[in-house]
Amino acid sequence: MTLLEKAKLAKQAAAQMLTLTTEEKNKALLTMADALENNISCILEANAKDIEAAKQANVTDALIDRLALSEARIHDMAEGLRQVVELEDPIGEVLEAWDRPNGLHITKVRVPLGVIGMIYEARPNVTVDATGLCLKAGNTVLLRGSSSALSSNQMLVKILREALTHTKVPEEAVQLLEEGTREEVNKMLKMNDYLDVLIPRGGAGLIRSVVENASVPVLETGAGNCHVYVDESAKPDMARDIVVNAKTHRPAVCNAAETLLVHESWAREHLVTLLTALKEKNVELRGCERTRKLAEDISIAEATEEDWGNEYLGYTMAVAIVDSTDDAIDHINRYSTKHSEAIVTDSEENARNFQKRVDSAAVYHNASTRFTDGFEFGFGAEIGISTQKLHARGPMGLPALTSFKYVIYGTGQIR
Amino acid sequence: MTLLEKAKLAKQAAAQMLTLTTEEKNKALLTMADALENNISCILEANAKDIEAAKQANVTDALIDRLALSEARIHDMAEGLRQVVELEDPIGEVLEAWDRPNGLHITKVRVPLGVIGMIYEARPNVTVDATGLCLKAGNTVLLRGSSSALSSNQMLVKILREALTHTKVPEEAVQLLEEGTREEVNKMLKMNDYLDVLIPRGGAGLIRSVVENASVPVLETGAGNCHVYVDESAKPDMARDIVVNAKTHRPAVCNAAETLLVHESWAREHLVTLLTALKEKNVELRGCERTRKLAEDISIAEATEEDWGNEYLGYTMAVAIVDSTDDAIDHINRYSTKHSEAIVTDSEENARNFQKRVDSAAVYHNASTRFTDGFEFGFGAEIGISTQKLHARGPMGLPALTSFKYVIYGTGQIR
Repeated sequence: MTLLEKAKLAKQAAAQMLTLTTEEKNKALLTMADALENNISCILEANAKDIEAAKQANVTDALIDRLALSEARIHDMAEGLRQVVELEDPIGEVLEAWDRPNGLHITKVRVPLGVIGMIYEARPNVTVDATGLCLKAGNTVLLRGSSSALSSNQMLVKILREALTHTKVPEEAVQLLEEGTREEVNKMLKMNDYLDVLIPRGGAGLIRSVVENASVPVLETGAGNCHVYVDESAKPDMARDIVVNAKTHRPAVCNAAETLLVHESWAREHLVTLLTALKEKNVELRGCERTRKLAEDISIAEATEEDWGNEYLGYTMAVAIVDSTDDAIDHINRYSTKHSEAIVTDSEENARNFQKRVDSAAVYHNASTRFTDGFEFGFGAEIGISTQKLHARGPMGLPALTSFKYVIYGTGQIR
Repeated sequence: MTLLEKAKLAKQAAAQMLTLTTEEKNKALLTMADALENNISCILEANAKDIEAAKQANVTDALIDRLALSEARIHDMAEGLRQVVELEDPIGEVLEAWDRPNGLHITKVRVPLGVIGMIYEARPNVTVDATGLCLKAGNTVLLRGSSSALSSNQMLVKILREALTHTKVPEEAVQLLEEGTREEVNKMLKMNDYLDVLIPRGGAGLIRSVVENASVPVLETGAGNCHVYVDESAKPDMARDIVVNAKTHRPAVCNAAETLLVHESWAREHLVTLLTALKEKNVELRGCERTRKLAEDISIAEATEEDWGNEYLGYTMAVAIVDSTDDAIDHINRYSTKHSEAIVTDSEENARNFQKRVDSAAVYHNASTRFTDGFEFGFGAEIGISTQKLHARGPMGLPALTSFKYVIYGTGQIR
């Protein structure tokens, strides 16, 4: 089948999804979860082919790790689907309702987005996770995974679709693109007649390419150049705990901190202790001139302009000394990717100023940036973390996969 | 100044807007309104140049009418700004707030989008209307009007900006592009670092071009191929009133109906009367074969495939007979632009089915499609009517010009 044929089927299926009940959708998710666990050996076999091909192609161990499934990882995927069953169904919720003087009763009702195009990289679990969230929110999904995971994705989708034939959700609701070419993706980016939204998940390059080339609306997820600012009145222990946690708890994820900003007067007293704590965690430091001068006994490379904009995703941190909260805010608004930022301070005034003026999805007072996450926010599984300002911002749970419409009740009103 | 310089200034101004109070923004709108009324002769003079140039270029009377300002139209623009003052300020509203088991207090707060790029056609009043709405919602605006209205727009923006110098809103919050070239627009469509959203307003060609070529997120407004479906149990008088109103009350606007669908059994009894009423209003009809056969005494042209997808914006209506509500729904979902549709019926069941399955921004039971409008919904002035499903759908008032962020209060929490 061609991309166009698959997109048409997904759109037809989306129309069918509008009449399903919560129970029918949940039944489909549970049936899919069971099917995954009943087919572990097939999945591992298909996955082994991808791993073998990846080894032949001499890819990095990190990539192979992302690609590799195991019995435990398959159980995790199934468990993930079961967790989505527990989430409240957003569809049909009446968001607002009011009467007009002419007697019209207007309601604003949550509805599915329609067809969601997912474009993602190596991890095959995204195939299952995204499908579960999209279906629960009443959408259908057109999946375009990495060609390096094609064999795994084909097997997963085959199992999921076979499971759906035993439920009210049409199997056409899950479509996998299998051509694996650049042209296929390029066509997908322009399918405004069939796709309601595109969600790219993966590295910065993938996301940029989708944003730049798509005419279908995009939910931009992604890059996190997160900052922690330690203000004049920060408690030294709290500052150390938050900075060390934000940087080193899991440095490869988007909500890890990349740049540390420190108020000049606090720095004079406490900077050396703080940087020593980071060094003990094997963090490589890149500092501004004032930082290097103040902490001259610590080995700190010179930070370049590039460092301020860098998402290291590893054990490296840029450090700058600033003269005020306003300077910290200006630095952040200049270099941040609008993901998550934190201020550590005892000053309510500086905290409110920081939270008002920093233009990012999540702005913390006295807490680690690591909390920007669907589970930590209490949303449950997320489809990604939005760094754009339209439609959805921050961790995107089920409501981010919905739209609304106005349903209006009249008795013959005309203008 | 170049486009880039103007965009940078708009972005800097957007950062300043974050700290303004409602009173400060309202003061700016009132000052702008007064300034317009104090400069009527300058505005008319500048507008006369545009009109003169348009006449030289032999453009249509309709275009000249859209371009032309008068003393009354200038008062209307000023009054429009004063009405926006009366609208509730959406900024700072706490949309949700909750506590996490670890003690984090999370709030979801409404914030401005940032910098809004408006791309629009002839009407110079959009310059003022859009500026008022954008500023009230705490945004700055980069305006790109039609080159045919350049002289008028330059004068309007000059007056608005001069007025802002007497207020807390920075005059850089309003930027007008003046180059008038295609390249200028093309560059604007790609300014993801400076623009948070683009809103095109104008004909279908303009909107399609922006959607297809922009990498900045777009709020798609526009085309309305709206349908009225008259069901089996529709009251004949109500059906006639709604159909005639939806088609003829103001046929040139997007919420006017373009296609009439009629249930076969209702048609046998009442179609001739209904079509006669349309004919009396000088509506030209294009019908399916069954329609033409059933109403053979009425002159009805043969509808082609193209008619079903056409937004006539005038006194023309396509008519088709269908066998059921489901057939009507399928027809609508196939040809509609997802704007507004109505069902006229006495059957609650058919009405609920129609409202659930029709995938449009506004779905009416027993009312005219003409109500899809910011004022009719009670929102006040609107920036356009969204026909996409992301971010905003239907009439877009001030909340559509906002985003949100998570403001999180901790006491030293780490993961």
